[in-house]
Amino acid sequence: MATSVVVAGTLIGYAMKKMEAPQNLSVFPTGEANTGYARYFTGQSWLAPLTSMKELNVPMSNVTFEPGCRNNWHSHSGGQILIAVGGAGYYQEKGKAARRLEPGDVVEIAPDVIHWHGAAPESWFSHLAIECNPQINNNAWLDPVTDAEYAEAVK
Amino acid sequence: MATSVVVAGTLIGYAMKKMEAPQNLSVFPTGEANTGYARYFTGQSWLAPLTSMKELNVPMSNVTFEPGCRNNWHSHSGGQILIAVGGAGYYQEKGKAARRLEPGDVVEIAPDVIHWHGAAPESWFSHLAIECNPQINNNAWLDPVTDAEYAEAVK
Repeated sequence: MATSVVVAGTLIGYAMKKMEAPQNLSVFPTGEANTGYARYFTGQSWLAPLTSMKELNVPMSNVTFEPGCRNNWHSHSGGQILIAVGGAGYYQEKGKAARRLEPGDVVEIAPDVIHWHGAAPESWFSHLAIECNPQINNNAWLDPVTDAEYAEAVK
Repeated sequence: MATSVVVAGTLIGYAMKKMEAPQNLSVFPTGEANTGYARYFTGQSWLAPLTSMKELNVPMSNVTFEPGCRNNWHSHSGGQILIAVGGAGYYQEKGKAARRLEPGDVVEIAPDVIHWHGAAPESWFSHLAIECNPQINNNAWLDPVTDAEYAEAVK
């Protein structure tokens, strides 16, 4: 009986943890659970759209990753810009060493470059993500970043 | 003689002040004195380009304003996005009330909307500025924001 209570408590605690992201990780909103892209992520992420004026052609969101969370290998035909705003994370292009990201770091991702980004193992991470050339942009989602690839990238 | 020394000291102090901006106003670099656009500004500003990959079509800089500094009334044919990142400032569209800006605030400026932006009277201010639709964008610079217009906007 005592064991059941502990297990139930742990499960409830885990479910609650999955629903919440720290609200003071950056000065930008954290938004909602990133369910739309969840199938392209390892771990839990959150998404807060920051713009809505379509004719500006600069769609921008704040993306928040729990520790260890990262997206799959992928590319954008229009390119992408990341602006690190909270916590610590990583960016890696296929075949290159990963780059650690801290608030203030800006990443320019050329069209069709295969890459991933996400949190450090020990830290939450938020970055603004700008979709470039949205008039022609398509995203190509590839394989997950394996635990071995991630461990090698962040070591 | 004593008066001359004091005057010279004051002038040197003023010249040094004009050359420096606070380096910890935000997590982004402050860059150099914004001499290229100085004729469109009332007061001193600094400019730090943050991107260079032309094909992304999202030129982005950090602009820092000394207290009271603001740019002239102006418009962009491609529109603009501002992201407040340090200190406090204001944004005003012609004929509307000014909006106070704090870190995390995002401003979407539609094409051809006449506006100005700058620091609060009592605070330095930094915002990221994104030029939208750079392939077709032209800036139209108009009259300075008078002291009376500024005082009314920020009161």
